[in-house]
Amino acid sequence: MITGKNYIGNDLSAKGNKSYRTFNPQLNIENETTFSEATSAEIGMACDLAEKAFHSFKTCSGKDKASFLNAIADEILALDDELIQTYCSETGLPEGRAKGERGRTVGQLRMFANLVEEGSWVEATIDTAQPDREPMPRSDIRKMLVPLGPVVVFGASNFPLAYSTAGGDTAAAFAAGCPVIVKSHPMHAGTGELVASAIIKAAEKTGMPNGVFSNINSSGIDVGVQLVKHPNVKAVGFTGSIKGGRALYDTASQRKEPIPVFAEMGSINPVIILPEALKNRTDSLAKTYASSITLGTGQFCTNPGLLLGIKGENLTNFIHSLSNEIVKIEPSCMLHPNIIGAYENNRKNALSQPELNVVADYQSNVQTNYARQTVTTVKDSTFLENPTLHQEVFGPYSIVVQCENAEQLEIIISRLEGQLTGTLIADNDEASNYPEVISALQNRVGRVIFNGVPTGVEVCPSMNHGGPYPSSTDSRFTAVGIHSIKRWVRPFSYQDWPNELLPNELKNENPLEISRLINNEQKTAKI
Amino acid sequence: MITGKNYIGNDLSAKGNKSYRTFNPQLNIENETTFSEATSAEIGMACDLAEKAFHSFKTCSGKDKASFLNAIADEILALDDELIQTYCSETGLPEGRAKGERGRTVGQLRMFANLVEEGSWVEATIDTAQPDREPMPRSDIRKMLVPLGPVVVFGASNFPLAYSTAGGDTAAAFAAGCPVIVKSHPMHAGTGELVASAIIKAAEKTGMPNGVFSNINSSGIDVGVQLVKHPNVKAVGFTGSIKGGRALYDTASQRKEPIPVFAEMGSINPVIILPEALKNRTDSLAKTYASSITLGTGQFCTNPGLLLGIKGENLTNFIHSLSNEIVKIEPSCMLHPNIIGAYENNRKNALSQPELNVVADYQSNVQTNYARQTVTTVKDSTFLENPTLHQEVFGPYSIVVQCENAEQLEIIISRLEGQLTGTLIADNDEASNYPEVISALQNRVGRVIFNGVPTGVEVCPSMNHGGPYPSSTDSRFTAVGIHSIKRWVRPFSYQDWPNELLPNELKNENPLEISRLINNEQKTAKI
Repeated sequence: MITGKNYIGNDLSAKGNKSYRTFNPQLNIENETTFSEATSAEIGMACDLAEKAFHSFKTCSGKDKASFLNAIADEILALDDELIQTYCSETGLPEGRAKGERGRTVGQLRMFANLVEEGSWVEATIDTAQPDREPMPRSDIRKMLVPLGPVVVFGASNFPLAYSTAGGDTAAAFAAGCPVIVKSHPMHAGTGELVASAIIKAAEKTGMPNGVFSNINSSGIDVGVQLVKHPNVKAVGFTGSIKGGRALYDTASQRKEPIPVFAEMGSINPVIILPEALKNRTDSLAKTYASSITLGTGQFCTNPGLLLGIKGENLTNFIHSLSNEIVKIEPSCMLHPNIIGAYENNRKNALSQPELNVVADYQSNVQTNYARQTVTTVKDSTFLENPTLHQEVFGPYSIVVQCENAEQLEIIISRLEGQLTGTLIADNDEASNYPEVISALQNRVGRVIFNGVPTGVEVCPSMNHGGPYPSSTDSRFTAVGIHSIKRWVRPFSYQDWPNELLPNELKNENPLEISRLINNEQKTAKI
Repeated sequence: MITGKNYIGNDLSAKGNKSYRTFNPQLNIENETTFSEATSAEIGMACDLAEKAFHSFKTCSGKDKASFLNAIADEILALDDELIQTYCSETGLPEGRAKGERGRTVGQLRMFANLVEEGSWVEATIDTAQPDREPMPRSDIRKMLVPLGPVVVFGASNFPLAYSTAGGDTAAAFAAGCPVIVKSHPMHAGTGELVASAIIKAAEKTGMPNGVFSNINSSGIDVGVQLVKHPNVKAVGFTGSIKGGRALYDTASQRKEPIPVFAEMGSINPVIILPEALKNRTDSLAKTYASSITLGTGQFCTNPGLLLGIKGENLTNFIHSLSNEIVKIEPSCMLHPNIIGAYENNRKNALSQPELNVVADYQSNVQTNYARQTVTTVKDSTFLENPTLHQEVFGPYSIVVQCENAEQLEIIISRLEGQLTGTLIADNDEASNYPEVISALQNRVGRVIFNGVPTGVEVCPSMNHGGPYPSSTDSRFTAVGIHSIKRWVRPFSYQDWPNELLPNELKNENPLEISRLINNEQKTAKI
């Protein structure tokens, strides 16, 4: 049952006077539950509990953390249809998507459970003593990764499960040994509370300390800022807009003790279509991209918002074909009236730019909160000179830039802001003729895709989801996959520390049987 | 020969009107060479050359980068006595120290050469395609670490070689594939220019692109700020004061495109002496710590500036013994009149605090620029209430805090600012009786030492040199050892990329024979 209250540690709490509701965009009505905005006292209590919980949670064994993570996954599944129905009523997304995202979320939790149960992720590094070394003896030094402390997680509007309450940021933080305080996303506060209840149940069942998790309601920005400013908070995870992510980054950087913020923000995900591919696959590419641009009503952070080609008959044919294909697709619902409102505004602003041609615009009337997919085109110099055209229009919108030649293509790519992904569409050996274009693309993105679409972010160790600013605030980390745990940990060294006082990861006898770098050799042996 | 000019890429340049000289603190006179402060045009040119150099340097093979790094080491050694004499004349440090630090610097360069020649450091991670997976096929995805781009390095006053021009930050950045622009430290600009000439020679001999390195002179702060603000610069390394490091961090955070700053800053390196140890080893501990506090005139970032014990006869005896020992040590020269000036000011300020007792102060007259070693003591509550007493007094100064009991000891530790190191002095099984003290210490530091001294930072894979703010701006990285390369790299993924276009690190045939994580298994096999 959804109560509308905050979870301050294990306890439900609603001490504030401000409240808000979520919205069903398909029915165009508010949902029933009233959510109570957290007060400063509730925020303070969540932060104090998190700090206290950290003292025991930080030394929790990998096995115990794995039990906790697996229990969260189990409890999420146990929410069953209530979760799916709440998700749909707060997003307008279809059931299939809700179930798919639940699967991804549960999969991520179990992936981190496996990681910490095995244990080698701590990068144990040992250099044994050399008492006879000249001119100075060498100490015994042993290093491993340890958790930073309490982490605040801001969920994403477009992924109520996989990038929110028990999403990738939270799962990685728990795996690292960091308590988590989630600032619940106001558009799906009910879904958030249900998942929070699953986390609390799992924490209680597996004996985790009170305060290992809190769920804070708020529809404004002030509560989030208070959380980021709290001295007990040691890191921040965020998925959302550039404006929101940058504001939190600035707040965190200006603290007396600055803390790291990993914000995954906007991206227009450039797609380069080389001439041979354009010629040989005009219609199939058009179909593929019409589908990728409108997937999930264009509400993916890897949505292809920018297509680049070299001008000529082939590009003209492709644009024509893309326009035909995209208007064939039935419009779909956006997440919230605010989201469709922003889409319409940004789209209108883009369309009002000089020398921009609208080549596809869904003509018929659409239902309230449904988005009209749109494709525009410009020439290279117009695009280069107008920064407005580089900005993301979050939704089913894409712009095709017609470049004079390969040199112009390279210049445009090199002047793009940082992006999550870049895609290259090429035939046979064509790509090897464009080394400068590929090199420029690699400098601006976190992941390159060959002959595919950027939408779809596989959860696997080799995935990088992040990239140069503003696609993320720190390109040195990924938000997806096992290595995303590195955002929440720091190296820590023990020098000449007694074996019995060392953590198990670093003890001579290697009781966890993990892989360690010992005197520059990677092995699972004892010392 | 020292020219006093900047290196803008491979060329010597002195277009500015402002100039300055270095100072010999032993002789108390200015050194001869006049150094030309870089102009905005020279800064801009260095940044443009670095950006251009990055396009080829980023794809430079590990073998070629190793040749470059080894050649730098060779050229530094070839500078021979000119380097040692210049070093001594600009720091007042003895020849033995100069030679030791040169050895450390050369050793670090060769360590990174070995790392990149072997090649596995890129953390190659491969998940092969699963075309038949249901409900969706899985793409082939391959990830590795790639360089961020040009890095600006600010050298340290107290390590003209190992943490400056070709020191750890620069060596790690080159190893990563990042061009480096050094903002030369004005106190040892001659040493800096000599080392810069060695880097330039090595770059030319091993065919590195012009712009892979520049050396920028300046005695003020404006040039450094210009460098950090330049859009071509993608990361910053700094070793020095909290004030200086924080100013650069703020500048970098406020850029339109924020960039990471790794600043290793101040630390008072708390040392906890437990009661049994205090009782059994009073005199030997006093000798050891008198020596550690005054080592290098207290000018190490790991200098023990804070000793903590539980009050009583044993602590009183220790303080007495430490006082006797420390005044026996002959005072020594500090690096520069500004450094001794700051030491005298900070010391005076500390000594003027209420309820502080001076227990050792070198009484005889000392030579100009020589420091008077000082030990003070306070009770726990005085220390807790007065933040001035928590501040570093850079030089041979230490304060002994007499705690009421173990609880007070824990409280004091938990309220310390972040530190590079924390040391525990304990006898036999004594340490296991203080789990809360040890836990609190671990939260505040980057490295713990058992029954040793914090001075002396071994260069090895297991070393962490860094820690919670303000000992560094980002505790997630170390400034020393092979893993310090991670400050300058980011993960990058290739999805379905053609094998022939992949970098060697990720090709099926594994031509570099590096260790890779393939479908969750670490191995050197081909695919």
